Amino acid sequence: MPIFTAEQLKNVGVAMFEAVGTPIDEAKQTVEMLVNSNLCGHDSHGVMRIPDYIEDILKGFCKPGSKIKIVRESATTALVDGGWGLGQVVAVKTMNLAIEKAKKHDVSAIATFNCCHIGRMADYASIAIHHDMIGVCTVIGNAIMVPYGGAERMLSASPLGIAVPAGKERPLVLDISMSVSAGGKVMHALAKGEKMPEGYIVDRDGRPTTDPEDYVKGGAVLPFGGPVAYKGYGLAMVIDALAGILSGRGSAFNEANRGQGVFQMAIKIDSFKPIDEFKAEMDNLIRVVKSSRKAPGFNEILIPGETELRKEKENLEVGIRIPETTWNKIIEVAEKVNVDAEGLLRQPPI
Amino acid sequence: MPIFTAEQLKNVGVAMFEAVGTPIDEAKQTVEMLVNSNLCGHDSHGVMRIPDYIEDILKGFCKPGSKIKIVRESATTALVDGGWGLGQVVAVKTMNLAIEKAKKHDVSAIATFNCCHIGRMADYASIAIHHDMIGVCTVIGNAIMVPYGGAERMLSASPLGIAVPAGKERPLVLDISMSVSAGGKVMHALAKGEKMPEGYIVDRDGRPTTDPEDYVKGGAVLPFGGPVAYKGYGLAMVIDALAGILSGRGSAFNEANRGQGVFQMAIKIDSFKPIDEFKAEMDNLIRVVKSSRKAPGFNEILIPGETELRKEKENLEVGIRIPETTWNKIIEVAEKVNVDAEGLLRQPPI
Repeated sequence: MPIFTAEQLKNVGVAMFEAVGTPIDEAKQTVEMLVNSNLCGHDSHGVMRIPDYIEDILKGFCKPGSKIKIVRESATTALVDGGWGLGQVVAVKTMNLAIEKAKKHDVSAIATFNCCHIGRMADYASIAIHHDMIGVCTVIGNAIMVPYGGAERMLSASPLGIAVPAGKERPLVLDISMSVSAGGKVMHALAKGEKMPEGYIVDRDGRPTTDPEDYVKGGAVLPFGGPVAYKGYGLAMVIDALAGILSGRGSAFNEANRGQGVFQMAIKIDSFKPIDEFKAEMDNLIRVVKSSRKAPGFNEILIPGETELRKEKENLEVGIRIPETTWNKIIEVAEKVNVDAEGLLRQPPI
Repeated sequence: MPIFTAEQLKNVGVAMFEAVGTPIDEAKQTVEMLVNSNLCGHDSHGVMRIPDYIEDILKGFCKPGSKIKIVRESATTALVDGGWGLGQVVAVKTMNLAIEKAKKHDVSAIATFNCCHIGRMADYASIAIHHDMIGVCTVIGNAIMVPYGGAERMLSASPLGIAVPAGKERPLVLDISMSVSAGGKVMHALAKGEKMPEGYIVDRDGRPTTDPEDYVKGGAVLPFGGPVAYKGYGLAMVIDALAGILSGRGSAFNEANRGQGVFQMAIKIDSFKPIDEFKAEMDNLIRVVKSSRKAPGFNEILIPGETELRKEKENLEVGIRIPETTWNKIIEVAEKVNVDAEGLLRQPPI
């Protein structure tokens, strides 16, 4: 499996986006966010996505450089037409809009449609932290998940990101899908030629399987929760209502709808409590939970977001492993848009 | 196991609350909400709670008739001192406050402290439906749940209720705890002399167990998610931040804090989309999901809140079964406050 530095991957990615007419700032922002996903261990949302993004631009489905348009607005809310811009670019703009509104009016909610794939929820929810706010970002895309008791793809994986600032401790950054696993992780297993663990996916008839091929052939991911998977399913239904229906994107099962629907919120903490007090209590929560007694088989208790920080540190040192098939696809699409990916690997950082 | 009608249980309950000085409207409201929990199958939040509530009033911890006080307020937010009123009474008031604010300003968030046990989240979230809003209610109380990988009670079961209106279909009403099971359900199993299923609780050393006695002796409930229980744990951490820290109640693990911290939101749907369109799409989501193909072993797909509606219909016909030990406790506390529970069973409805 080839290993790259973050800079190498950024060089290749930015060149590819520029080659298909993406403004340089948007190319850099998008690639930076994708490579950061690889860095923090979420390869399913990393450079593996570049070929799809580039193809979407070539097809004219994704339109880099387009502007967002506010369709409906109040002091605390907005409905935004993303103009089919790059998802990362659109969703950062709309999260910033949520933050601006919450600065003035304490709490806000923004729903966005006509938006391409936005990647990881944590990236957007975390922006709020820098403004002493709690950030929320959730999204729906294509249906890849069965309802509890179902055999058909009806719901999106329904990822949800919530970021809460702390003081001296690292912030709490939750980023989870309502499926046992993100669809991208199944594709990543397929790319690596690996099986999925039991209890993650079903075949096209709703029967349990561990073979990622069954997923591709009309199977689906399961909602999370094990014996109480109706909980993961229930949360996904709510997310379909918010990021799908309320946003105007439409429900996940509706294949006529394309792209992602996004729902974001910002909550200003000092509307409720002085920020220093809040942060001190968050620090205390994090410390007490981390230092509590461990269950048999566990050496430590991790805070949401902590795994990602560690993985990032590790990958910055040892480099990012990209599966052969993923890398080959990137090279293939790079060639298509006249970018010499292998040559760029030898270049200094941009 | 004795079987009662809802009216019989209400007669007994209201008399008990009145006997300890609760204003009649508060007594009726609280008992109605508790009995409704039994009706819809959530006995863990039903009349089983009456003895504790009455004892809390006798101890002077819970103060029926007290007023709520807004401590900090903006157009869209409020921090509310519940004045240690009955939880049901306080949390209906604060949910209505959230709705009033969202009517004017589209989205709102209310955090409440000094509040007694509020029961089921669905009761509050659902109020928003009648105002064409999406309602959210979450709460933290005592720590009864281990963090992922932990052996100590650190987090509340962290129930979350979210209600979304539909048109011709019944609304979507999610009410789930972030633990595999609510603590009350373990106590209910204990009262019935039953074991818990595997994967629900651990003993005081974090080892898996099915014996509810182990839970009482310092054990804990597990976060939900099975192999990915870090998801249920992560959501519980966020709820601790919102309903615990932001509300001023304090984190669940802090035993010096008593009562529940509440966090509620209301989102006005037509700030984003005409309400009729939204409801038509919700109806469509519900119908499409329900009519999709079933997995082996399933005859139907249920929408969040549907089980409760069915159970309610059934219990209205056949009556509410109360475990012997639960009923004996109610009689015992009724006698203590000079209420003839058995005699009231023969009375006509109030």
